[in-house]
Amino acid sequence: MMLTPYLAATDKFRRGSDTPRDYLERALDKLDEVEPRLKAFTALAIPRARIAADMSTRRWKSGTPLSPIDGMPIGIKDVIETFDMPTSMGSPTYEGWCSGRDAASVFALREAGAVILGKTKTTEYAGTYPTDTRNPHDYNRTAGGSSAGSAAAVGAGILPAALGTQVMGSIIRPSSFCGAYGYKPTVGAINRGGSHDYQSHSCIGVIGASLEDIWATAYAIVERAGGDPGSVGLIGTQTLGAAVKPARLMFFETPGWATADPLAREGLMRLLDRLREVGVQVLSRHDEPRMEAFETALSDVRELGSNIISFESRWPANSAKYRDSLGLSPLMHDSAARAAKLGLDGYRACLEARAQLRQQFEALVREVDAFITLSAPGAAPHGIQWTGDPIFNVSASVLGAPAITLPLLKVGSMPLGVQLIGAQHTDQQLFRTAQWIRSATH
Amino acid sequence: MMLTPYLAATDKFRRGSDTPRDYLERALDKLDEVEPRLKAFTALAIPRARIAADMSTRRWKSGTPLSPIDGMPIGIKDVIETFDMPTSMGSPTYEGWCSGRDAASVFALREAGAVILGKTKTTEYAGTYPTDTRNPHDYNRTAGGSSAGSAAAVGAGILPAALGTQVMGSIIRPSSFCGAYGYKPTVGAINRGGSHDYQSHSCIGVIGASLEDIWATAYAIVERAGGDPGSVGLIGTQTLGAAVKPARLMFFETPGWATADPLAREGLMRLLDRLREVGVQVLSRHDEPRMEAFETALSDVRELGSNIISFESRWPANSAKYRDSLGLSPLMHDSAARAAKLGLDGYRACLEARAQLRQQFEALVREVDAFITLSAPGAAPHGIQWTGDPIFNVSASVLGAPAITLPLLKVGSMPLGVQLIGAQHTDQQLFRTAQWIRSATH
Repeated sequence: MMLTPYLAATDKFRRGSDTPRDYLERALDKLDEVEPRLKAFTALAIPRARIAADMSTRRWKSGTPLSPIDGMPIGIKDVIETFDMPTSMGSPTYEGWCSGRDAASVFALREAGAVILGKTKTTEYAGTYPTDTRNPHDYNRTAGGSSAGSAAAVGAGILPAALGTQVMGSIIRPSSFCGAYGYKPTVGAINRGGSHDYQSHSCIGVIGASLEDIWATAYAIVERAGGDPGSVGLIGTQTLGAAVKPARLMFFETPGWATADPLAREGLMRLLDRLREVGVQVLSRHDEPRMEAFETALSDVRELGSNIISFESRWPANSAKYRDSLGLSPLMHDSAARAAKLGLDGYRACLEARAQLRQQFEALVREVDAFITLSAPGAAPHGIQWTGDPIFNVSASVLGAPAITLPLLKVGSMPLGVQLIGAQHTDQQLFRTAQWIRSATH
Repeated sequence: MMLTPYLAATDKFRRGSDTPRDYLERALDKLDEVEPRLKAFTALAIPRARIAADMSTRRWKSGTPLSPIDGMPIGIKDVIETFDMPTSMGSPTYEGWCSGRDAASVFALREAGAVILGKTKTTEYAGTYPTDTRNPHDYNRTAGGSSAGSAAAVGAGILPAALGTQVMGSIIRPSSFCGAYGYKPTVGAINRGGSHDYQSHSCIGVIGASLEDIWATAYAIVERAGGDPGSVGLIGTQTLGAAVKPARLMFFETPGWATADPLAREGLMRLLDRLREVGVQVLSRHDEPRMEAFETALSDVRELGSNIISFESRWPANSAKYRDSLGLSPLMHDSAARAAKLGLDGYRACLEARAQLRQQFEALVREVDAFITLSAPGAAPHGIQWTGDPIFNVSASVLGAPAITLPLLKVGSMPLGVQLIGAQHTDQQLFRTAQWIRSATH
């Protein structure tokens, strides 16, 4: 399976030996080939995309691209509004719903010259009730969720990048399953205006064919649309800069390690050994009592995350009942029941617990270059009725910390990601650490 | 002009000498009488409201009201979504737009048994370009803005309460102009889901016929829908409790005092004298060097507030251009130009400045029971082309502090409000202070 990075191709646009329109046509050819079985998209805007690619072709020819991602075909997770396509939320309650506007991120991408090709499939309201997207590495497996279509489209080599959202494990996990790079930013770093992921630690992020494509995409958005209102937004520079060798990494078990696939665990252990061989110090909970205490404190993080998002999801799920009382899945009913049990006081206690975990984490992570762990407990599960376990992803989500997955491992023939997690607002350093690890272990 | 409080009427519902349906019919009679000239509403849901009032009538008769505001007719500012009426944002770009869902606040109100009567007129996108709503005390004057229709409907005695939003002065100022009580909560205290006021210090609040009606309405929402995701929400108890005499108040000039109407200034000074007579200590910038420094630091607060909201309003205003490129007012273009000049770095500096002001304020306000000032520089301006000056309101907005306006003053025959401002999350104490001041000076 070949990923199709975009930034690496733009040199040819400058030289005139390739064009954004040709790049798009290759993407459309790939789409025709795989989409009937992959089912990554819920809507496509092909004529408009061709026009946008032609406009970009002119700009590259005249040496005036609007940004490094000018002309880049991109997919938009179907909880994020686009003015020219429906936003269907992966739910019959919103089937065909048109807001008539672009989300802040989409508007910024268009300003940067990107080509909005289509809406990518999501689980119901970006939760856990699955969609029918298949894994590009094995059509009998899930692509993961909730950003299923975005991960599948990038993993299949259709697109160089696609927007996703993550509140539990919805970017890092499907990226891992589909062999793509994935990035969930510091909470608040990318403007969520017009994205229907309302929860307090949810983020818009990018799934992509390379670290450079992802960074350029995220930066192009934030440069134009900022972060969430009241947030400073993604901190950094347009050019990612050179890879930086980490001095120290912290191996992070998360509550997932004990029950992860032994092959996945072995894969990560070998990778950590390789890093040690080239002079990187790799610590763990056994070296540092505060890390041991932190891992222990995180044992209920999935429960904590589920409680917070169930409470914050009562609306709009409650209101959706008016438009289609039969259209909400059993899992949404479960979530509503959880929220009712929790109540406002229980929710407030969860916010306090989250704040304490964040404090613990920030103190620890600033003593190393990054935390390192698996991106999922193993390869993508068989079938499409379960999107897999987010247990390796919930921690970074709840902590509001930036996380990156690198497609560096295999379980049999299936891809598996290595996950790096950094301190809040150190996203760019995390990318540069990730670049180095990719080169050193590839 | 008679305000029509609801909570005071519910005793009769219990005794059976009045019903919510009769209450609604009286509201509809008043509506028929004044709305043709008042122009407070942009949409009405009368048949649905009658059904809701009939259901409420049953509940009161059987002694099972859903909340203290069960059956209360309420208006919803037209930037807040309702599943059964369009949300038109006071802009031709959204004329007739139906989201098909209730905002979190509206859903909660329905759960509490409230009767959603209609959508109330707003200035363009809750900004400064006016709507055509008239002042119920003088049809040749503005009702203020941006929550124009909500303030006019309450001030005219049609409704006991209506939802508004405030990011500069959009609740307190129109309430003052229309002779209503008004409340802007601590930032984040009332869930904004489905309300199109995206700015980081914007709030949903309540305009009402009494302090008790407002508190009951706000509490009923937050009990069911919480605050903004990640916020603890409005802190307090369902019953407001007894009035509390303040020991110390801080007279707060704001940057508005120097240019306020002399009659307005005299009115407030007389009220402060009366408070002193009954044993309340009233301090000012002249008694406290840190207050002097704070007032000085606030001299540019309007500029600061405008910068922050212009940057945070680029989206969705930018995207609205796609749906209707001729539909944005000159003032929206001005705001976009301001944002472009500011840029992301300038915006970040504004956030930092805001955080510093908040720190200064919280230290000062916790030494007194409340800050006290005018709610506007004078009575409502003549004409409907200008909604008046928010200079007395921007401070509380930027500070994220709760503010209440009490219709205690007059300028000629026109009403003018007295504004109380408290520390973040002390909303209930501020209400109890306000109750006492109302009784002591009425």
